[in-house]
Amino acid sequence: MADWQEIPGSITAPKGYRAAGITAGLKPSGLPDLALILSDTEAIAAGVFTTSQVRAACVDYCRERLQTKASARAILCNAGQANAATGAQGWEDALESAKALSRVLEIPPESILLASTGVIGQRIKLDALKAALPQLVAAVAEDGAESAAKAITTTDLVTKSIAFETTLSDRPVRIGGIAKGSGMIHPNMATMLAFVTCDAAVSPHLWQQMLGRAADRSFNQITVDGDTSTNDSLIALANGQSRTPAITDAGHDAEKLEAMLTDVCIYLAKAIARDGEGATCLIEVQVSGTSESAEARQIARTIAGSSLVKSAIFGRDPNWGRIAGAAGRAGVLFDQNNLQIKLGQFLMMQHGQPQAFDRAAASNYLRQAAEGAYLKHDTVVIAVSVGDGPGVGKAWGCDLSYDYVKINAEYTT
Amino acid sequence: MADWQEIPGSITAPKGYRAAGITAGLKPSGLPDLALILSDTEAIAAGVFTTSQVRAACVDYCRERLQTKASARAILCNAGQANAATGAQGWEDALESAKALSRVLEIPPESILLASTGVIGQRIKLDALKAALPQLVAAVAEDGAESAAKAITTTDLVTKSIAFETTLSDRPVRIGGIAKGSGMIHPNMATMLAFVTCDAAVSPHLWQQMLGRAADRSFNQITVDGDTSTNDSLIALANGQSRTPAITDAGHDAEKLEAMLTDVCIYLAKAIARDGEGATCLIEVQVSGTSESAEARQIARTIAGSSLVKSAIFGRDPNWGRIAGAAGRAGVLFDQNNLQIKLGQFLMMQHGQPQAFDRAAASNYLRQAAEGAYLKHDTVVIAVSVGDGPGVGKAWGCDLSYDYVKINAEYTT
Repeated sequence: MADWQEIPGSITAPKGYRAAGITAGLKPSGLPDLALILSDTEAIAAGVFTTSQVRAACVDYCRERLQTKASARAILCNAGQANAATGAQGWEDALESAKALSRVLEIPPESILLASTGVIGQRIKLDALKAALPQLVAAVAEDGAESAAKAITTTDLVTKSIAFETTLSDRPVRIGGIAKGSGMIHPNMATMLAFVTCDAAVSPHLWQQMLGRAADRSFNQITVDGDTSTNDSLIALANGQSRTPAITDAGHDAEKLEAMLTDVCIYLAKAIARDGEGATCLIEVQVSGTSESAEARQIARTIAGSSLVKSAIFGRDPNWGRIAGAAGRAGVLFDQNNLQIKLGQFLMMQHGQPQAFDRAAASNYLRQAAEGAYLKHDTVVIAVSVGDGPGVGKAWGCDLSYDYVKINAEYTT
Repeated sequence: MADWQEIPGSITAPKGYRAAGITAGLKPSGLPDLALILSDTEAIAAGVFTTSQVRAACVDYCRERLQTKASARAILCNAGQANAATGAQGWEDALESAKALSRVLEIPPESILLASTGVIGQRIKLDALKAALPQLVAAVAEDGAESAAKAITTTDLVTKSIAFETTLSDRPVRIGGIAKGSGMIHPNMATMLAFVTCDAAVSPHLWQQMLGRAADRSFNQITVDGDTSTNDSLIALANGQSRTPAITDAGHDAEKLEAMLTDVCIYLAKAIARDGEGATCLIEVQVSGTSESAEARQIARTIAGSSLVKSAIFGRDPNWGRIAGAAGRAGVLFDQNNLQIKLGQFLMMQHGQPQAFDRAAASNYLRQAAEGAYLKHDTVVIAVSVGDGPGVGKAWGCDLSYDYVKINAEYTT
């Protein structure tokens, strides 16, 4: 069992954070569309962003900011317009929104990070955003996490938030997080966004390293449709308000903090995959037996991303041949005579040989996973072993349903 | 205009080839399921095979044969069982089927190449196959190409075949080809198969090089669902029966032959993409402006493979933001300020800036492409430029429809 526990409060659970989400009139729907996360003091800040060559202005803005100064007090996020593929004007809009918020908060613009989600090719509605900032700042509160989690969503069916608490040097340390996204990219609602707050004291370099590794084991291991967005952003703040000793090097405390950070990211990542467009269930792929864990993660991601595996699971079809096919094309060398495949408790292939199994029972397992009314019971588990190596990895995805096509074909431009 | 013309006859159009396809009782449906392509004389043989770690026995068999001896007289292909993921017994079955055919044809087993397509994890029905070989050999004929093209299909809606003729040293030279596949992998009907015959005389090393490059520009540039199969095989024979001088080095004749070979492969590749599961239209993506053509091909393939682009086109939605998003994540560096996107004649992005266009007319263009009753008129063309470099590349795919999910979810195991 992990050495930490879930607590309420998500991003405002750690000490010294407040948040708010309001309706600024950016979304045509009139739903909440502007969120602010505020640390009472300057916090160490780390970020992981889309690797796409086509990036939103806010992504370029944050990368530049964090290279100059690895700290921040505020994250401003708008939903409705992605401000991606908007050229030089999009960049000016990003700068202007940071400046406007800095005037209201009376902090330097350099202490503000930005994120956007919404339609690619559309600029932020800057006038509406600026007009709403005083109201937004007035609304920030210690119980404002849920309103912020709501305001960053687009076509998400649910909000995604979590907080964990552990003990470092006999003092409580907390990490909270919120995320949005129900595809790696949305209809053209760019994106996956996740914001994490922490009250531990940690050096900027170490915090960035921890975040990068946590992202590799969580957000980089989920796939809904294989499309990486222009706006993908994961930003994590650590403000030291827990008053625990500063973590500056590897060691017990660093390991513990990183493990909890990773679990926060995994929770949010799974919540995004579970909310995948049209999905009826969450799929967890567990891979073992590679030389390196990165290879296991790569095989797991390939299986979780296979349209054929995904549509078979939607059809409640225990089609292990598609799992074998996806494993084989993942770009990782292995001897197919060592391949083992399990779907739930059903052993389908061992030593590269097909195994007899109860097909009706296996199909029923898939049906039950989809019909699992409880959050913890709706996961389809695929376990694959490719050899005797120490490498292990997991990935998460969802099934491919008629509704995925419907959502994406009928989304009105 | 290309320096060759289309002629009838497909794989038996080149001199010295015969073919047949019969019902051997391998498919439960009772449709034709066993094909033979026979060269009257030993032909130079080249092959390109799946890169998957999970390979059919026939793939390992052909790779081993061609490494030892780059020539062959016969290609035997069964449909119904993929003989992939069948372990050591699958390998024995492959050897046994080659031996059985060698006895009937009275040629060495080393002159026989094998291919299988069908359900992964199922062995060939060896007794039925062996019993049918005398009838198959008796049926081979110069007009047997279409029966062979039919017998290699699984869930394909149409057969795919083509032949071109050109002139080398004042003598006619012909290349013919057949292919099957309507996904990069089928439900779990492994695979894409293509067989090419040629009557030119060419050295084995050069023929293999030509085939590899042709595959890179054709079959490796189509995608239906991103799933590479366990059985993908492209085999090309060149038997020298055109009595043209042997081509052993680069030069005019080699270039011309390779260009025609590439066009045969592109024709068959496009035919597979057009027959993609559930597809309503063919999508051609043209990319230019990269440093290397391989980079342009990579971007083209990523766009053609994007579920979001594919479902937008099914929805007749001129959603250029998804095209930009897919281009950006292709793994090729470019400056997004140079990005240009055209859909048909509609310019949607230039110098990285969104352009005004007639949205209704663009949607209508997509509708007409899908409703194009004529083979030549049902292509959606996406043209993307990312800079000033000399690199160019094309890729082909199809739209993502409800029927794709239906076919793959409801395929009965």
